[in-house]
Amino acid sequence: MSDSRPVLAVDIGGTKLAAGLVEPAGRVLTWSQVPTPVGIDAEQLWRTLDVLLTDVMDGAAVSVDGLAGCGCGCGGPMEWPAGVVSPLNIPAWRAFPLRSRLVQRLPGIPVRVHNDAICLVAGEHWRGAGRGRDNVLGMVVSTGVGGGLVLDGRLIAGATGNAGHIGHVVVDPDTGPVCACGGRGCLEAIARGPGLVAWAQAEGWRPDHKDATAKELADDGALGHPVGIAAMRRAGRALGIAIASAAALCDLEVVSVGGGLSQAGTLLFDPLEEALRAHARLPFTKGVTVVPAALGQSAGLVGAAALLFAADRYWTAD
Amino acid sequence: MSDSRPVLAVDIGGTKLAAGLVEPAGRVLTWSQVPTPVGIDAEQLWRTLDVLLTDVMDGAAVSVDGLAGCGCGCGGPMEWPAGVVSPLNIPAWRAFPLRSRLVQRLPGIPVRVHNDAICLVAGEHWRGAGRGRDNVLGMVVSTGVGGGLVLDGRLIAGATGNAGHIGHVVVDPDTGPVCACGGRGCLEAIARGPGLVAWAQAEGWRPDHKDATAKELADDGALGHPVGIAAMRRAGRALGIAIASAAALCDLEVVSVGGGLSQAGTLLFDPLEEALRAHARLPFTKGVTVVPAALGQSAGLVGAAALLFAADRYWTAD
Repeated sequence: MSDSRPVLAVDIGGTKLAAGLVEPAGRVLTWSQVPTPVGIDAEQLWRTLDVLLTDVMDGAAVSVDGLAGCGCGCGGPMEWPAGVVSPLNIPAWRAFPLRSRLVQRLPGIPVRVHNDAICLVAGEHWRGAGRGRDNVLGMVVSTGVGGGLVLDGRLIAGATGNAGHIGHVVVDPDTGPVCACGGRGCLEAIARGPGLVAWAQAEGWRPDHKDATAKELADDGALGHPVGIAAMRRAGRALGIAIASAAALCDLEVVSVGGGLSQAGTLLFDPLEEALRAHARLPFTKGVTVVPAALGQSAGLVGAAALLFAADRYWTAD
Repeated sequence: MSDSRPVLAVDIGGTKLAAGLVEPAGRVLTWSQVPTPVGIDAEQLWRTLDVLLTDVMDGAAVSVDGLAGCGCGCGGPMEWPAGVVSPLNIPAWRAFPLRSRLVQRLPGIPVRVHNDAICLVAGEHWRGAGRGRDNVLGMVVSTGVGGGLVLDGRLIAGATGNAGHIGHVVVDPDTGPVCACGGRGCLEAIARGPGLVAWAQAEGWRPDHKDATAKELADDGALGHPVGIAAMRRAGRALGIAIASAAALCDLEVVSVGGGLSQAGTLLFDPLEEALRAHARLPFTKGVTVVPAALGQSAGLVGAAALLFAADRYWTAD
């Protein structure tokens, strides 16, 4: 008899906390989300998450015994696989023992915590844009630029569980902006949303309110604003160069691009393709294809479930 | 009873053909090499190799039945794992069925052919500078810049067997030289020996004969020639930037650098370290160490043997 119990999948980010039940084939049965609370302490944040998990389980009348396990994606950095997390965008948690707390909350079932960008690529590879391919880079282009790598059909962890960090591939070492990491000219320093907004403002873009976002910048570009267009070109070009480097180093087949900025469409993807084709000229890199992520908002939950359901490919820690 | 038969290891490059017998623990029992003949056709080159293999086997009084298999590294590109080779620096072989010919020559034993740079990293990981580490990039800096990747303890093939091609990571997309691949600013375009020589000559270096090499340029640098020093600085900086990108993308522990140019010593490695430390600033990239390749000339043979003796880690095609 095959085990048809679902996985409790959790996705913890700076903007929202999401949880859902995912069945063995990868379908999301039910899910719920709340905005990530701000200005609270570590225990208050944990209680918010606890309530969310309880709601999802109660809503589906599923007890802990009815779960095949719990998979959780969380913003980095983290100690992996220990699951001690210090998410850059969630100041309330610093060295928070997330996995231990989940184990206490969900006794008797396996609990696996991984980087949220890694869960996204696991989801896209298992059931999304990378399905059926063995060499896939999944990218998230948003407030930061993250990613995960599947090579030779398996999720790559690397020395510390951070493989896939394409945001810190160097694309403009001489004249690029200084990056939050301390380097210069990293992809993330150029293509992250707030970086583009700052650049556009320096170039004369005047949004009509203070907390302008890259989404609004992209929207202005779509309406023909020259700085909006130039900003998307700047991001697209940096992405194309970094992807060309990754394709050469990792011999990739497919790159899936998700995250907020990926919704900018041709304004972003046309210059991305142009730069990629200019730099990816080897016989084996010419054919790499860049596609929008296919699973949208549910990729993180599907990927968190894949840490359990397809552990042979996506969980390398045991 | 454990099988103590050696592997016949073969290393085919543009400069030399080498063959040897390697025992299961990785020791080279005996080996021989000849300069790669030029101006001959495909069959003449095959006969040269055939004579070399026969000499090595006869010299050790080993018959085909006494071999555990044959492992062969060859310059790329190639169809892998089919072993149909078109080595860039060996014009006599274009779509030459190297593996099939070795199978005919060595009936009844397994024959595995892989990229020579991949064999080098397999050798360095199995018995050299990367031993005991799970995430290693092996580089060869010479007439070209190649490499191979071991991640999560296994050699990575990638989509076409070309993973590890760090020579085409982009380090200077705007002002870098055009690369033989058609791109601009690839590491290889800057750091390959002939590229450095051309750059130095444009900068006023006047070697005392026509076919000057990067080795002579490095030697002049060691004697204090400012252009020689600047050329090594240029190569070292490009290498450091590319390694920083690779460390972020692949979460590496160790990078081993071999090939002729790696013998330039501190003249090359000091600026390499400087650029690497300037760009590798994430907690998980800060610690990456760059070391000279440990096995020297025998790395290719040891790695070719590893394709058989440690197939679980270095042979992913079956």
